[in-house]
Amino acid sequence: MNKFEQAAAQALEQSRPLTENGHVATYIPALSKADPSSLGIFLHIKDGRKIAVGEVKKRFSMQSISKIVLLAAAIERYGPDRIFSRVGAEPSGERFNSLVELDINSSHPYNPLINSGAITVASMMAPAAGLDEMLAYTRMLCMDNEISLNKEVFESEMNNCSRNRAIAFLLDSKGILEGGVEESILLYTQMCSLNVNAESLANLALILAADGTDPSTGRRLLKHETVRVLKVIMLTCGMYDESGTFALKVGLPTKSGVGGGLLSVADHLMGIGVYGPSLDSKGNSIAGCHMLGILAEKLHLGLFRESGNEE
Amino acid sequence: MNKFEQAAAQALEQSRPLTENGHVATYIPALSKADPSSLGIFLHIKDGRKIAVGEVKKRFSMQSISKIVLLAAAIERYGPDRIFSRVGAEPSGERFNSLVELDINSSHPYNPLINSGAITVASMMAPAAGLDEMLAYTRMLCMDNEISLNKEVFESEMNNCSRNRAIAFLLDSKGILEGGVEESILLYTQMCSLNVNAESLANLALILAADGTDPSTGRRLLKHETVRVLKVIMLTCGMYDESGTFALKVGLPTKSGVGGGLLSVADHLMGIGVYGPSLDSKGNSIAGCHMLGILAEKLHLGLFRESGNEE
Amino acid sequence: MNKFEQAAAQALEQSRPLTENGHVATYIPALSKADPSSLGIFLHIKDGRKIAVGEVKKRFSMQSISKIVLLAAAIERYGPDRIFSRVGAEPSGERFNSLVELDINSSHPYNPLINSGAITVASMMAPAAGLDEMLAYTRMLCMDNEISLNKEVFESEMNNCSRNRAIAFLLDSKGILEGGVEESILLYTQMCSLNVNAESLANLALILAADGTDPSTGRRLLKHETVRVLKVIMLTCGMYDESGTFALKVGLPTKSGVGGGLLSVADHLMGIGVYGPSLDSKGNSIAGCHMLGILAEKLHLGLFRESGNEE
Amino acid sequence: MNKFEQAAAQALEQSRPLTENGHVATYIPALSKADPSSLGIFLHIKDGRKIAVGEVKKRFSMQSISKIVLLAAAIERYGPDRIFSRVGAEPSGERFNSLVELDINSSHPYNPLINSGAITVASMMAPAAGLDEMLAYTRMLCMDNEISLNKEVFESEMNNCSRNRAIAFLLDSKGILEGGVEESILLYTQMCSLNVNAESLANLALILAADGTDPSTGRRLLKHETVRVLKVIMLTCGMYDESGTFALKVGLPTKSGVGGGLLSVADHLMGIGVYGPSLDSKGNSIAGCHMLGILAEKLHLGLFRESGNEE
Repeated sequence: MNKFEQAAAQALEQSRPLTENGHVATYIPALSKADPSSLGIFLHIKDGRKIAVGEVKKRFSMQSISKIVLLAAAIERYGPDRIFSRVGAEPSGERFNSLVELDINSSHPYNPLINSGAITVASMMAPAAGLDEMLAYTRMLCMDNEISLNKEVFESEMNNCSRNRAIAFLLDSKGILEGGVEESILLYTQMCSLNVNAESLANLALILAADGTDPSTGRRLLKHETVRVLKVIMLTCGMYDESGTFALKVGLPTKSGVGGGLLSVADHLMGIGVYGPSLDSKGNSIAGCHMLGILAEKLHLGLFRESGNEE
Repeated sequence: MNKFEQAAAQALEQSRPLTENGHVATYIPALSKADPSSLGIFLHIKDGRKIAVGEVKKRFSMQSISKIVLLAAAIERYGPDRIFSRVGAEPSGERFNSLVELDINSSHPYNPLINSGAITVASMMAPAAGLDEMLAYTRMLCMDNEISLNKEVFESEMNNCSRNRAIAFLLDSKGILEGGVEESILLYTQMCSLNVNAESLANLALILAADGTDPSTGRRLLKHETVRVLKVIMLTCGMYDESGTFALKVGLPTKSGVGGGLLSVADHLMGIGVYGPSLDSKGNSIAGCHMLGILAEKLHLGLFRESGNEE
Repeated sequence: MNKFEQAAAQALEQSRPLTENGHVATYIPALSKADPSSLGIFLHIKDGRKIAVGEVKKRFSMQSISKIVLLAAAIERYGPDRIFSRVGAEPSGERFNSLVELDINSSHPYNPLINSGAITVASMMAPAAGLDEMLAYTRMLCMDNEISLNKEVFESEMNNCSRNRAIAFLLDSKGILEGGVEESILLYTQMCSLNVNAESLANLALILAADGTDPSTGRRLLKHETVRVLKVIMLTCGMYDESGTFALKVGLPTKSGVGGGLLSVADHLMGIGVYGPSLDSKGNSIAGCHMLGILAEKLHLGLFRESGNEE
Repeated sequence: MNKFEQAAAQALEQSRPLTENGHVATYIPALSKADPSSLGIFLHIKDGRKIAVGEVKKRFSMQSISKIVLLAAAIERYGPDRIFSRVGAEPSGERFNSLVELDINSSHPYNPLINSGAITVASMMAPAAGLDEMLAYTRMLCMDNEISLNKEVFESEMNNCSRNRAIAFLLDSKGILEGGVEESILLYTQMCSLNVNAESLANLALILAADGTDPSTGRRLLKHETVRVLKVIMLTCGMYDESGTFALKVGLPTKSGVGGGLLSVADHLMGIGVYGPSLDSKGNSIAGCHMLGILAEKLHLGLFRESGNEE
């Protein structure tokens, strides 16, 4: 048992009890059916090793993790400057679906990983790429051809997206949206409804850890600058209004989704995918975050933590 | 020349220069074409006398003044308790189209005379009464069969109502809306687009001044309790975030619209209608408000001002 | 038993059970010792009759009702224009001790009956009148020479006024305060700590109902314009963020204090004083407000309610 | 001319024109006297080399950079857990001196690098360490025995700190402050008024880059964990409401002060100190930030930028 296997197994074991302290998302029936005690972690190491512990094959909807895929696609297509002329790069200090800061700050959404920002990014992509293209793109980045639209989730989301529609119309009233409201909401919701598992997320995270290349082939899938932007934004804005605290405690660029997924990058080293649908009050996987904290500590990963190795 | 004629003439003369200090609404082309120097006032006195000074025949869209008609219809139909279980009765201290207070205060819109509140009232009426019924109702209360839908304004508004749609979807996401978003927005916008003139507004105001009856016939058109509620709400919430100041300076229950209209009630005495499309920074007719202030002072009208008469 | 006696007795009887639904203020020990079941109402009618039901002799601290006395003194001394150049006349839609609206709205406090506004008024009075003068002035307006500073309350308040000091320093940082922070806080807190009873409040309310005169002597104590301003502001802003709802339900210009007092004006008719220290969630006497509602209905008092008499 | 000298010289040359686009701080006279065209940068490399370009000897007040010293002292003394039980670690998305988020979020200040958070940290240190101790500590960390209190700045600040006093009293009203308001404000303001230069800041930054040790002697001055926390917090919260954007563009943990200073850490490599009193609209040195961006790009420094080196 290598140090990765050991760390992953310990992280899972120590974090499992926390699943009882959280709650699965309940705003749509499809999510509320998840088993709160589920927990799994997948490590995909740059040298090709794969470590799987717990429920890593279970499919679940990407939800907000898809904001990373949308942002990657948009930066690759338009370049970061055009994206960040419409969306900021500041943590908002507010709930992920807040309207307040957007209504007061008239010029643009705080960042591309809250709903208002991601809907804006979706509005830039929608005229260029529909579900088919974006599904293919997601499969490619996640190295997973089984990814598909979860129709039950999708239809449920479309019937429960009044708040996102409110955000989209507010963006439209401020002239921020590029495409139409409906096509933006459609693509945004489709992306949220894509079914992945912990392994798919680890694969995408590995590409980010490897500066945009697939380490097994050396093929470049994303530009260096795109990957740098994604990792910085995940670090400062990836965990909703818990982002700063998570950067302090764990220090790995990570994006969460209310489906229970976590996509986390150990730079230069490995990609991490997590499934754990029991959520904390901020909407992040409660046991999943704890697992990442244990991994970071045991393996000396994360922002400014490596320096501790030297001693 | 009686004291009413004299006061109205002086009010107009002294207020006309103020039209240069304001601006016509510009968010839709139809409104921006208004002549900012237009100004007119119509007094309809309980004894039947009618006093017209300036541009009282000019047609313009009711805009927010229609919120009074919607509220009247809804109270008559459902009673005040049901209305005020969905909408508050508090001035908001915010712009008429604010989302902030609604997003933070999760339970209901502050009052029925800001957009969020009026759209909620429209959602209660829409399933029961379409444009035809509401147009007939408006004509009846305004004693004006020439009132009709201004199609240019209506279409313009529908193409520029993203912010109102954002408000409606936010209301819907909170379970506040009774009907669907689209039918609520449609009825709300149709009502805003009805063409009235200063005389129509004075007629409606007279009915409010006469406790809900048509003084010329004695026929009761609105219940006493409906009229009381309307007058209190106009007094505390009728002038957007200028309501308290207007109550202090003028003291007449009044509702304004960005089309330049003002509907104002001198209780027990007369109804007042104003047209003056040059608006102040709060969206109220700049010269129109000034005229009402002069009238209130000259004729000893308005909240707690009568007591000065006694001396 | 005349109609006033009957209405007061019924109001008390019907409202007493509500005392159990509220809570006495607890932020200082002196207030928390109040008996929540206490309830009393005093009517001082313009013709000289006095009607006392329940605990009308019990002394309690004026708290926010003193904002009316401060405002009266300031308007009499400086005129309304100077006061309202520093303080607005708009209901805030926020808690009485909110800092938010003041921090965003940089120019001035929303109105003189929330803490920020009253501290501003105190800063205008403090350089001109200390406790001695203001105590004498309060005794005169309340026709009650027994009014005195409650030292226990005063010292408790001074030890628990960090939030008010925060407000005062914020006002100072914006250049709104006229005097120094400490003298403003001192006078403001002293005024809050004056001991009155339901009768004193009814006496002051009677003067406001009688347009500023003492009806028993005809002597003018306050200018007509001062009294008009006070009544309008009480009507629109007197009950914290319940003001609009109270104006709709009751319609009497009223000011509440967390000591359990209510000062309420039945214009042209009588002054009303209430004691009931069990408070609702907004900080208003829960049974006291209910008593005023019953009185208004039974005696056809309050804004636009009289018209109902005619039927 | 080595690559560091070259990069620093080019950065200064290319950034100097930007000094004309900003403004020196004007809220106290002492700051407004600064020469807006001043600009200097000092690099202290881990191997002992020192590179000085422009105005690096000019003394100026630390202002908000002192929040780093206070935080370092507090973490060393109490451990991070106790600090972060009183102060959060989240970027606020608001101005550095905002009260809004503190008034709504009742539990604690967003982070220790905005005024509310730093005053809280000062309240924890004040009972334990006065100016003498903290001055000695600052001199030690900055390796600069010339650091002293700028009396003119200090007195000016004390006469202009109503807003900070408002913040402190609000903190006190919420039970967040550990010490008294006055001693907290005093220590906070004294620390802001310490005179440093670009070299002192580079020295402190070098210690952070070297994981808490003085590289010339190997002596440990700060614990590893303290240094990790400081760098993470500087990265996520160091540049006010520009922190996220700065992390994206530059990616170096940096703290700014309105005196024109910047303290910036190139981890494992060097400490950077900047002086440039012409500020942008967020209060950060306008040309100084630009210099850091150029350095980061030319030398491949900053968050996730190194990976680009490998190609």
